[in-house]
Amino acid sequence: MMRRVYMDHSAGMPVDPEVVEAMLPYFTQQYGNPSSLHSWGNEARKAMEDARSKIVALVGAKRNEEIFFTSGGTESNNLAIRGVAYRNKDKGNHIITTTIEHMSVMNTCKSLMKEGYNVTYIPVDKHGVVGLQSLEKAITDKTILVSVMYANGEIGTIQPVREIGEIAHRKGALLHVDAVAAAGQVPINVEKENIDLMSISSNDMYGPRGVGALYGKTGTRIQPIIHGGGQERGLRSGTENLPAVVGMGKAAEISKAEIKTEGERLSRLRDKLIKGVIESIPSSFLNGHPTQRLPNNANIRFSYIEGESLILSLDMIGVACSSGSACTSKTLEPSHVLLAIGLKHEEAHGSLLFTLGKQNTEEDVDYVTNALPDIVKRLRAISPLTPKELLS
Amino acid sequence: MMRRVYMDHSAGMPVDPEVVEAMLPYFTQQYGNPSSLHSWGNEARKAMEDARSKIVALVGAKRNEEIFFTSGGTESNNLAIRGVAYRNKDKGNHIITTTIEHMSVMNTCKSLMKEGYNVTYIPVDKHGVVGLQSLEKAITDKTILVSVMYANGEIGTIQPVREIGEIAHRKGALLHVDAVAAAGQVPINVEKENIDLMSISSNDMYGPRGVGALYGKTGTRIQPIIHGGGQERGLRSGTENLPAVVGMGKAAEISKAEIKTEGERLSRLRDKLIKGVIESIPSSFLNGHPTQRLPNNANIRFSYIEGESLILSLDMIGVACSSGSACTSKTLEPSHVLLAIGLKHEEAHGSLLFTLGKQNTEEDVDYVTNALPDIVKRLRAISPLTPKELLS
Repeated sequence: MMRRVYMDHSAGMPVDPEVVEAMLPYFTQQYGNPSSLHSWGNEARKAMEDARSKIVALVGAKRNEEIFFTSGGTESNNLAIRGVAYRNKDKGNHIITTTIEHMSVMNTCKSLMKEGYNVTYIPVDKHGVVGLQSLEKAITDKTILVSVMYANGEIGTIQPVREIGEIAHRKGALLHVDAVAAAGQVPINVEKENIDLMSISSNDMYGPRGVGALYGKTGTRIQPIIHGGGQERGLRSGTENLPAVVGMGKAAEISKAEIKTEGERLSRLRDKLIKGVIESIPSSFLNGHPTQRLPNNANIRFSYIEGESLILSLDMIGVACSSGSACTSKTLEPSHVLLAIGLKHEEAHGSLLFTLGKQNTEEDVDYVTNALPDIVKRLRAISPLTPKELLS
Repeated sequence: MMRRVYMDHSAGMPVDPEVVEAMLPYFTQQYGNPSSLHSWGNEARKAMEDARSKIVALVGAKRNEEIFFTSGGTESNNLAIRGVAYRNKDKGNHIITTTIEHMSVMNTCKSLMKEGYNVTYIPVDKHGVVGLQSLEKAITDKTILVSVMYANGEIGTIQPVREIGEIAHRKGALLHVDAVAAAGQVPINVEKENIDLMSISSNDMYGPRGVGALYGKTGTRIQPIIHGGGQERGLRSGTENLPAVVGMGKAAEISKAEIKTEGERLSRLRDKLIKGVIESIPSSFLNGHPTQRLPNNANIRFSYIEGESLILSLDMIGVACSSGSACTSKTLEPSHVLLAIGLKHEEAHGSLLFTLGKQNTEEDVDYVTNALPDIVKRLRAISPLTPKELLS
């Protein structure tokens, strides 16, 4: 029997029905502008600050003034990196990041290089872990920013953020963390983990799209990238997106409450999926770290076939997954993340990314692990690259 | 009897219940990412393009590829101006705008001045109309962009956009129009009105907040300001905010259908409000153009008292209005728009902005016109500036 099995949560998550419920009154009833002087404005301001305090609680920040709402993870990453770069021009022009960052970090750095900034890309090991020694070697007195993701959305690998922060701070550089894939999945504490700036996204924890936040530790000064009415204490102009902010607050609250139990449940499903696939399909391998990985992430490569054909074949039996980041799936280039962990072009092309979510069950995992061997066999049978011994 | 009368629609509008209805499935059921290869992705892509075509229809664009979704009016203005400036650096560094633009235009220009661009601010007449002769005089071969709002959200004045476009084009400059306050209120045709780039906002036509669009005529090339996965044909990275985009599409469709009848209804209410207030309160005057003004906009100044006290007094009887743009209401500065039309500081401070909306009725207008004379009298009685003859 055909199921609909959505395992592409890193591309987009459903919004939690409780979150939708929380947002609804702000569309049609409490539609004041938080900047307005009258009672409608007061209500809106209160709702904004209530939502902000829930983000504070999720990430272990110290106060509401450390959370700035943006239009999402991409904007938060742009704001953090460009904001630090412009603000600290006098101090230095060197930025350090890694070879496996999200395109919003990669392309912001690339664009800053055209403006005269120097960017060093620290390599990662075969599991996708950032090399601390490379960082030690690369960092100088001119380094103003180290930008490293908390966990990689494609291969799931979680970074040693606290240690990276220590190295950055020893040299007087700021640490920005892209926690879009990690926030809501694993517990994060900005204070304990030496984080100065951190990007998070609402949809990546079952909140609405089009809203995210940038955490900025008290005293961290950056320059805005969008100018106007001076909302969000001057850092992000534009009418506050109140319904979405309220939704993100609710999503953060739910995430915090469920992070332990749901993380454990997802980890079990993930491991069952990885084991089920790898044990039943020859020449299939896990990408990313075997243990230090996001609870919902299973990235598996299959020799001799292409991820795109796998995605389309799985789609035909109702399963949604991807070949990497949705943000780069339009290009035919192999994932820069998979190349960075040392895979060859054809290995990167043959990788499949499953990202699990709240609605996924054991039955979903069984459905995929039961169906996948035949699909892989069929695709390998028509691939000229497949060695004979795999075709029996 | 106390009513709740919301007349602050330029600060924030309720979302049309039909729009909320249209958005709902995209939160919890059709949550695919438009960039994904599978069926969820296909559905999402179709919904994006369907919404885009409704924006095309509203503004008279030629094709879907001319509409780029952003996070709102402020971002659209930032993107248009900075995008043209960076892209045309080789051609020239001169930008022309006016003295009454929204802060998102004003502050983007200010920030570009620090980067070496020259900005000329064209003055307006006492009704807030941009001087075409001043524009003719200011424009040179180095002018790359003329940025003028379609209508002013504070004083309601509608600009001679077509003529402004002719002048710009004669010199080879692009015309950007901030139509945030106008789109959905008055019919706009980008082709007939010589518009190359146009910013619109969803919430200003009863759509959700946190989403807007930039129209860019085919062939107009600008540089992105937010970098990442290359969504919106490379111009605006970040996961597409599908529920909001669908909502904005629905809002545009409804606006287009109702623009004539609702515009006439609002104009009648507006004129009744203006007449009712000005005839019953001595030393009260209309700000902005007497006829060329937005159907929903009534901006009235009252000598000898402060707008803030009026807002708070009206709030106590359930009426919401403002003293100007919500984007600037946090500062104690008088509105730059009111100063630009020649008002003195104290006149600007004594102004009240009523912006009407779909839910407002004749009864709402009667409620305000009945209540306001006593409020003004009471506030004037305690103001040291009020001349004796007004106190009887």
